[in-house]
Amino acid sequence: MAQKPSIPKGTRDFGQIEMARRNYIFDSIRGVFALYGFQQIETPAMENLSTLMGKYGEEGDKLLFRIQNSGEKAALAPEKGLRYDLTVPFARYVVQHREEISFPFKRFQIQPVWRADRPQKGRYREFYQCDVDVIGSNSLVGELELIQIVEEVYRRLGIRVCLHLNNRKVLAGIAEVIGAPDKIIDITVAIDKLDKIGLEAVNAELKERGLSEEAVMALQPILNLSGTTADKLTSLRTILASSETGMKGVEELETLFSMIEATGVELNIELDLCLARGLNYYTGAIFEVKALDAQIGSITGGGRYDNLTGIFGMPDVSGVGISFGADRIYDVLTELNLFPAALQSSTQVLFATFGEAEQTYALGWAKQLRQHGIAVEVYPESTKMKKQMGYADAKQIPYVAIVGGDEMAQQKVMLKEMSTGEQKLVSKDELLQEIKK
Amino acid sequence: MAQKPSIPKGTRDFGQIEMARRNYIFDSIRGVFALYGFQQIETPAMENLSTLMGKYGEEGDKLLFRIQNSGEKAALAPEKGLRYDLTVPFARYVVQHREEISFPFKRFQIQPVWRADRPQKGRYREFYQCDVDVIGSNSLVGELELIQIVEEVYRRLGIRVCLHLNNRKVLAGIAEVIGAPDKIIDITVAIDKLDKIGLEAVNAELKERGLSEEAVMALQPILNLSGTTADKLTSLRTILASSETGMKGVEELETLFSMIEATGVELNIELDLCLARGLNYYTGAIFEVKALDAQIGSITGGGRYDNLTGIFGMPDVSGVGISFGADRIYDVLTELNLFPAALQSSTQVLFATFGEAEQTYALGWAKQLRQHGIAVEVYPESTKMKKQMGYADAKQIPYVAIVGGDEMAQQKVMLKEMSTGEQKLVSKDELLQEIKK
Repeated sequence: MAQKPSIPKGTRDFGQIEMARRNYIFDSIRGVFALYGFQQIETPAMENLSTLMGKYGEEGDKLLFRIQNSGEKAALAPEKGLRYDLTVPFARYVVQHREEISFPFKRFQIQPVWRADRPQKGRYREFYQCDVDVIGSNSLVGELELIQIVEEVYRRLGIRVCLHLNNRKVLAGIAEVIGAPDKIIDITVAIDKLDKIGLEAVNAELKERGLSEEAVMALQPILNLSGTTADKLTSLRTILASSETGMKGVEELETLFSMIEATGVELNIELDLCLARGLNYYTGAIFEVKALDAQIGSITGGGRYDNLTGIFGMPDVSGVGISFGADRIYDVLTELNLFPAALQSSTQVLFATFGEAEQTYALGWAKQLRQHGIAVEVYPESTKMKKQMGYADAKQIPYVAIVGGDEMAQQKVMLKEMSTGEQKLVSKDELLQEIKK
Repeated sequence: MAQKPSIPKGTRDFGQIEMARRNYIFDSIRGVFALYGFQQIETPAMENLSTLMGKYGEEGDKLLFRIQNSGEKAALAPEKGLRYDLTVPFARYVVQHREEISFPFKRFQIQPVWRADRPQKGRYREFYQCDVDVIGSNSLVGELELIQIVEEVYRRLGIRVCLHLNNRKVLAGIAEVIGAPDKIIDITVAIDKLDKIGLEAVNAELKERGLSEEAVMALQPILNLSGTTADKLTSLRTILASSETGMKGVEELETLFSMIEATGVELNIELDLCLARGLNYYTGAIFEVKALDAQIGSITGGGRYDNLTGIFGMPDVSGVGISFGADRIYDVLTELNLFPAALQSSTQVLFATFGEAEQTYALGWAKQLRQHGIAVEVYPESTKMKKQMGYADAKQIPYVAIVGGDEMAQQKVMLKEMSTGEQKLVSKDELLQEIKK
């Protein structure tokens, strides 16, 4: 036999079990999105390169998969590229269709993206993103709903999580009041190490990163923040009093936390000043969700942005969104053994037969069971019992209905429960009852 | 404002309504597949060019979208291409994973494919295919189940169809007995015109296409075939008596029709000797489904093949499959106005509020309604009534729950039914009852 064919590095085939599990994740998420009135859209796999280029930084441009032109244009530079994320195509979509859209626009999108990254464990060249955003409104109801969605999605999936919450305006305020407005990232990176390396080492690192003695001194109250969320907000109110931006951020956090309390959100939420993801585009709330029982990093993240569509000439459209990391959620569910067992097989009953007449008999039963919404299969060949049983085993089908001459004569089947090996002669009604229990 | 961004020629954005409709089609089909034990797989969007090249003929090779190499290999000839159909990746999948697969392998696959075709009305460069196949079995149970699936899918979608059925072996037999074994396609093309141009013109065309006088004479009984399926099969038995292949085809048809009868298939099925799709790879049954109430050509098609995986060095794997044409099914449902009205909006109730306290009140109700599985939205801003109503209209939300101070004081909301304009003051329980009816 010839050499086995293969697929490109960094891409994956998804077999039946993986697909059933992935669909379980996506269906769970989709179901929650729908409860909040978010609607699905899809954009093409390929976008014009002019839409994609310059949107992901220099490094990102290099990671775009470019598509060769066809026909006469083949010799020219490529004009199309594969979708690199769902954010830029969404911005393009909003601008292109702005006359048809009624704002606030609540959309979700679940599609693959492609990056010419060096493949490694857990990093693929093709992977799905699952984004949910509401745009065209400044209201903090957007932030609240995303938090409620996170709560409900992970409740349904059975994953215990903590949502880390920060606000870009608070970070900007901190940098401002300590007199180092351009050092937001240095400050958050340093704060993040507090637990690991201690206060003294953090202060040393801040100086290394170019903060003045005075700035480091001024930052000490922030580094010493502790207590409940309410305590932290109270301290921030004092510390940031002189920064308009900072105070705006504190107010946003206060309003959001009071909405969280008023609506009885039970999710574990931590005000986390070290959270600094997406600082180059988030302008308000910043979210990150971590699984409590698995060491895997962030499984969901997002934030508020004020200028999604500015890159396409439509300014001042504010929005807030989050993205669920399907691959990592998959890994967490696998590690914690949280996938429902019933996902393994959709088929409830396999009919095993030993001749043409028996097969016809089984096909009749199969039809009637399907009319009751029960997934059944008739083994297509009347071959050895062992082979038919092996098929049921491999597909994890819970029941095999064996049909021989005796069973036919009595208008019954011999029903074998695969997990126990128990067999009993049953009528069609008895079979229905057995399956439905 | 800058020029509106756009998408590549021949590609499409799918907005919320289109997506809801497309999901309705795919979910209907998926639900039927599951009843028969077919399981979903997915393959990567990009395949190695070596997997794709030479599989679709010279014309097909030209229509492959090639992906530029990244990094150091950028200057070399491309090594990857976008999926052109689902059949070749499926064959590659089966060969690559043959040790993990338990045969017969019943799989379905719903994914986009890409072709660098000249775009025109109804022909896209990116479109979804929806394939279902059972491979690793010669049993006609496969054909029967696909016919049952076609019946059930179109019953659920409400589309009246006719399934045209032919058999490649019968066509080969006909060509053989009239002494023109290499003229299968010419013969079927000519037969196909019988209704339009009449017997004499068909005979003339056959001669033009190189059939001898004797061959044309020998073909006359075929051209005069008429009556019921049983009549046609009886005639074919006589006509094809001298062709082993032809008789095998007649037997397959007879067996299949007897299974169709035994299982009470009510689908409109026509034995159609003119049906000649996929003659370069189908080896047994050939299917094509047409909508009776729309002029749109084939909406589903497929057949039996004996050598799917031979191209990858794994011979003698027989299978049978069909492909549902999602775009055409979409067009038929649109033309016949068969999409369920409820697809338009997932949201049942929009809460319209006029202040912060009212919004908090509404958020509390919203939470409780969602716990009952009802999709609701709270308009994120306490803005003008007209704007909030306009949003409900645009999203076709059937109910608006208006919250003012009076309503709050009474622990009620003013519920407006958008279709009638009727308003009534209701409690939470009354609202639940109203929505659930």
